[in-house]
Amino acid sequence: MPNTFGHLFRITTFGESHGGAVGVVIDGCPPMLDLDETDIQPELDRRRPGQSKIVTPRNEADRVTILSGTFEGRTIGTPIHMLVHNEDHRPEAYSEMKTKFRPSHADYTYQKKFGIRNWQGGGRSSARETIARVAGGAVAKKLLKQRFGVEVLSYVKQVQKITANIDHEKVKMRDVESNIVRCPEKVIAEKMIRLIERTRKAGNTVGGIIEGVARGLPVGWGEPVFDRLEADLAKAMLSLPASKGFEVGSGFQGTLLTGQEHNDPMRARRGKVRTTQNNSGGVQGGISNGETLHFRVAFKPVATIMREQETVDENHKNTTLRGRGRHDPCVLPRAVPMVEAMTALVLADHALRHRAQNQWK
Amino acid sequence: MPNTFGHLFRITTFGESHGGAVGVVIDGCPPMLDLDETDIQPELDRRRPGQSKIVTPRNEADRVTILSGTFEGRTIGTPIHMLVHNEDHRPEAYSEMKTKFRPSHADYTYQKKFGIRNWQGGGRSSARETIARVAGGAVAKKLLKQRFGVEVLSYVKQVQKITANIDHEKVKMRDVESNIVRCPEKVIAEKMIRLIERTRKAGNTVGGIIEGVARGLPVGWGEPVFDRLEADLAKAMLSLPASKGFEVGSGFQGTLLTGQEHNDPMRARRGKVRTTQNNSGGVQGGISNGETLHFRVAFKPVATIMREQETVDENHKNTTLRGRGRHDPCVLPRAVPMVEAMTALVLADHALRHRAQNQWK
Amino acid sequence: MPNTFGHLFRITTFGESHGGAVGVVIDGCPPMLDLDETDIQPELDRRRPGQSKIVTPRNEADRVTILSGTFEGRTIGTPIHMLVHNEDHRPEAYSEMKTKFRPSHADYTYQKKFGIRNWQGGGRSSARETIARVAGGAVAKKLLKQRFGVEVLSYVKQVQKITANIDHEKVKMRDVESNIVRCPEKVIAEKMIRLIERTRKAGNTVGGIIEGVARGLPVGWGEPVFDRLEADLAKAMLSLPASKGFEVGSGFQGTLLTGQEHNDPMRARRGKVRTTQNNSGGVQGGISNGETLHFRVAFKPVATIMREQETVDENHKNTTLRGRGRHDPCVLPRAVPMVEAMTALVLADHALRHRAQNQWK
Amino acid sequence: MPNTFGHLFRITTFGESHGGAVGVVIDGCPPMLDLDETDIQPELDRRRPGQSKIVTPRNEADRVTILSGTFEGRTIGTPIHMLVHNEDHRPEAYSEMKTKFRPSHADYTYQKKFGIRNWQGGGRSSARETIARVAGGAVAKKLLKQRFGVEVLSYVKQVQKITANIDHEKVKMRDVESNIVRCPEKVIAEKMIRLIERTRKAGNTVGGIIEGVARGLPVGWGEPVFDRLEADLAKAMLSLPASKGFEVGSGFQGTLLTGQEHNDPMRARRGKVRTTQNNSGGVQGGISNGETLHFRVAFKPVATIMREQETVDENHKNTTLRGRGRHDPCVLPRAVPMVEAMTALVLADHALRHRAQNQWK
Repeated sequence: MPNTFGHLFRITTFGESHGGAVGVVIDGCPPMLDLDETDIQPELDRRRPGQSKIVTPRNEADRVTILSGTFEGRTIGTPIHMLVHNEDHRPEAYSEMKTKFRPSHADYTYQKKFGIRNWQGGGRSSARETIARVAGGAVAKKLLKQRFGVEVLSYVKQVQKITANIDHEKVKMRDVESNIVRCPEKVIAEKMIRLIERTRKAGNTVGGIIEGVARGLPVGWGEPVFDRLEADLAKAMLSLPASKGFEVGSGFQGTLLTGQEHNDPMRARRGKVRTTQNNSGGVQGGISNGETLHFRVAFKPVATIMREQETVDENHKNTTLRGRGRHDPCVLPRAVPMVEAMTALVLADHALRHRAQNQWK
Repeated sequence: MPNTFGHLFRITTFGESHGGAVGVVIDGCPPMLDLDETDIQPELDRRRPGQSKIVTPRNEADRVTILSGTFEGRTIGTPIHMLVHNEDHRPEAYSEMKTKFRPSHADYTYQKKFGIRNWQGGGRSSARETIARVAGGAVAKKLLKQRFGVEVLSYVKQVQKITANIDHEKVKMRDVESNIVRCPEKVIAEKMIRLIERTRKAGNTVGGIIEGVARGLPVGWGEPVFDRLEADLAKAMLSLPASKGFEVGSGFQGTLLTGQEHNDPMRARRGKVRTTQNNSGGVQGGISNGETLHFRVAFKPVATIMREQETVDENHKNTTLRGRGRHDPCVLPRAVPMVEAMTALVLADHALRHRAQNQWK
Repeated sequence: MPNTFGHLFRITTFGESHGGAVGVVIDGCPPMLDLDETDIQPELDRRRPGQSKIVTPRNEADRVTILSGTFEGRTIGTPIHMLVHNEDHRPEAYSEMKTKFRPSHADYTYQKKFGIRNWQGGGRSSARETIARVAGGAVAKKLLKQRFGVEVLSYVKQVQKITANIDHEKVKMRDVESNIVRCPEKVIAEKMIRLIERTRKAGNTVGGIIEGVARGLPVGWGEPVFDRLEADLAKAMLSLPASKGFEVGSGFQGTLLTGQEHNDPMRARRGKVRTTQNNSGGVQGGISNGETLHFRVAFKPVATIMREQETVDENHKNTTLRGRGRHDPCVLPRAVPMVEAMTALVLADHALRHRAQNQWK
Repeated sequence: MPNTFGHLFRITTFGESHGGAVGVVIDGCPPMLDLDETDIQPELDRRRPGQSKIVTPRNEADRVTILSGTFEGRTIGTPIHMLVHNEDHRPEAYSEMKTKFRPSHADYTYQKKFGIRNWQGGGRSSARETIARVAGGAVAKKLLKQRFGVEVLSYVKQVQKITANIDHEKVKMRDVESNIVRCPEKVIAEKMIRLIERTRKAGNTVGGIIEGVARGLPVGWGEPVFDRLEADLAKAMLSLPASKGFEVGSGFQGTLLTGQEHNDPMRARRGKVRTTQNNSGGVQGGISNGETLHFRVAFKPVATIMREQETVDENHKNTTLRGRGRHDPCVLPRAVPMVEAMTALVLADHALRHRAQNQWK
């Protein structure tokens, strides 16, 4: 289970950062969907290292190959296997990690849990694992768009203390992609970029908040009780490396309102039911209500910093460690396609679940 | 799947607020655990209506019966079935709901999804469903305590704008239970109580934040990638009625720190590895690191208010609706045992998963 | 997992033979299906003890109550909980079993696995557990009939060496129910009945074979690879108490044919594709091909005999044990509704799975 | 789900016969197990085409590569991904299959279910898919042997009407591997080989029975009710291509015995409990009892014959089809490692499940 996500549209991922490859098997994608590598590669390019001056300069092309599940350019209802071979190994950059645990990384917990770890980079805990999610999410995104008319996008809303004010009803993907930090508000984006550059020069890192949006959902996706749409999204987002929080609709700020202020009044116009505000965030009782789904995800500052830090070694002796190698000063620009991928995976799964059980009247 | 939670220690819940009963089947509880109704009832009493002046005055005893899975006061490895019969029906209080959808409730989404709903109360979307979770969580709590020495507790940290400052390392269950709002800081608790009473009199409602804590975890619970401890907790919490957000460790505030500030330095003392601060919240790479697990859950103000609101009816005509019946002005005091139950369920599941796979060195 | 069966239409069962109750939670039944106890009770009556002179004379009414999941006589998409309280306890009949293990029963393996068992009867290993399956299967049967036009039935084909020759294309439920042994061939049925009566008088038991049939399946149910229709059926049947074998279509006899003899030629008539024989048993590549599904299940003779047998006690001392109490001399007449229930559960699950993923062209 | 098998030790397989590759992801293998390709390749060599004169002459090396999940020759608790690239494509041999459905193959059902299929060979329904199972099973086998002392093996017991008489308590792997048909009884093996050669020359095919054995199981593997050891084995075996039946212990023949004859008396010797015969087949109540697990699987004759057969085309017109290409006249010699693989996968999964839940006394 730990490496599988979803029920009807489900992915199983594999691969360590310094093993042979990372990849994904998608099980449950409906047949007859047009699909080839050109549907996947652009999403991987959005998450790949070396894409801009504010991300890690590691240069990995991350070329994806589809090895099963399609025939003559279409899905055939069998598992879709996608593979990205690893390259650009520099294990020497990590030799110190063989014996020392990096603070606020997974080195110590993996070592204790499994009694062994691939210490050449983060192994399975490396964000490189998210290649598989982004590849899987690209298929989910296409399914949602082509079969259901649902659009998924996300963007950087905050980097440390710099916050953008974005209208999630109107923001467009081309605005997100118009700059390297993936914040659709141009002036704020420039401030964010400068902050990230400054932070990198100082050998430090910063975090922030990504906002996720899905538009065009019908009423009825999501399930009562445990598999609420927002519960599955929360799990999806908290499963991303470096994420520390999730909120949907009004979120934590909503706790400051009264019920009267918070409730979303319902109004009908020409037979169509809408709410006049959207504190619910597009879900009520765990089920989509036809409004725009919107949520936010908090990402902590990257744990690898180019400064000396206190830590312990494998013999439980105190020591210090200074980050080396080529790392991101801020994970957010590259996390945008990850948030979209996980959102698409959750929604594609619920789209299929809804088809299975709830269309008889 | 929608009504099942967990993998190895798992619960399946059932029941509508105005059907015959609500209850739970626990599958996967290890044998030889002492267990009878006296382990369950106290937790149900903490969530039951009518327990204090700041919750709904509905008077339901919520008496639980164990109908299978135990023999001579011990679990026997077979499914544990617990049942609470419904009583105190006043469907007339809900008759208007037959045709009108309550704003920010699940009435509309359930009706559209399923084409039918039990409109006598919230049916399956009612918080009454959480009886089953609290009963299941009580068993998980006992398992955690007896077999693993893990303690789970939670408390009200914030009601609307009133915030308590609690040390999650030291707070005790008896402090939580020392007052009716379940905030362990006495002076703040009194302010919260007064606010809730004032709010009720005004026919309005308020929300807030509950903090969850688990102490005594070994290193190694949780899984890489999707089934991170915090991911499963996030899902658990966002599956609770009225919850809108989840954060672990530094959470959303952590996005304002730099990497250097945020990282938790590691220090060894007498062979034991600890961190000197706990922004990680007790998990690193999704796996417990031996520090206290701490997180927060945002609950919106209760949707049922005693004031007239704009809404639509089943014919998609605009209308208005005023809440009637007996409702909570603030869900938080009764949500404390729910947060604990879901926490215990997640941890018990991971405790068993850890046993299965990761003890060979 | 051990007590849950199915993916989209799934049941979770609970209850020991001498605990408070046995029952089932159905999760995933589509909404808007007419359903009340009168749909369930007749199936339970077909499996209940005391129904005829050739089954155990224990007199249990096995009255079922639906406690959730329906409203005004229809399913509402939430879990359906059904309960049958236990009665007619005679634990004294079992007192010897407290310390002695019955040969070819589950007493020894349960005791070793769990360290404890409910020795008052078979506990969870008792065939009483199948009440829950039959109740769940009754709902699946109704769903299949009303929504998909699929008919499920089964019958006794063999009791020890007495074999009936039934045309599975034509046999009708009323022929199955026309006699107490549930063999649709009247003359053979009488022989079977006499054999069972003779066997009981001798304090011995017999087994036999039940044939299962499903008619009206569309092409396309079942999945490639692991979740083949016949694989899920095989699991379903081998999970029944006392079953020792399963075969579909030509089964074990088919191994004696050559490929040319065994292959089912395909012919089209008026645009409809049929096979001219049905050695495949209605499935090809794990997926229904529109022909009648037919299979057979072997049931061993009942393990409880009224004769002295060699066994061991809980201290691993050799001893003897003679069966007491009221038991079935032959399980088959009561196993017919169990086979049907499990068949219906498998098919209902695959019906929903097929809807979810495979209807886009 | 359709392409995943197992709960705690689980495999997800992918690949079509004429796509880029076939392979498997194993999730849940415990860490610290010595593992590299030399553990896997010998099992693949036992199932590969071209291995002897009685199997298909297709010459595929089926070289396996482990791409993740190991580090310095040991498993690390992360998913193990193994890949075998396809080669030796001769799609022209299949061009007729583009429009015509092969009788008793999955062509028709796949086409109807998915609306599309990879017609160059069997696609996902090809036995080539079992490479992934055998690779996964090789890891399970090693885990069982090294960590639990459990040995899994199987052998050809019957080819059409030629039957061997093997003592499943004593048969050794080297006897199985001593001849190309994998029947440990030498004289019978030679008869089988001659029959298979004769059958091939006649353009026809034959089936038969494989017996599976597992020795050294502790008491306690398997679960009550649905996940009985024999139920999971039945599913595993019926999921293999061409299998039509499964029986455990006395199986179908056991229905001819009385209870007194069938029951396995229990005897204690030096504190160890054994049965004096083994009609149960090593399981009682779904749980291993410490005796040798033994079962049989029926395989129909291979559907592809070199003779003209009646069939229909994609336009539902009647036509004929003669098999071409290089096919097995009898699947059994190559199915032996498949049966072992599926057995090992079932047992490894239950070994881990047993560890998780049932060791507290």
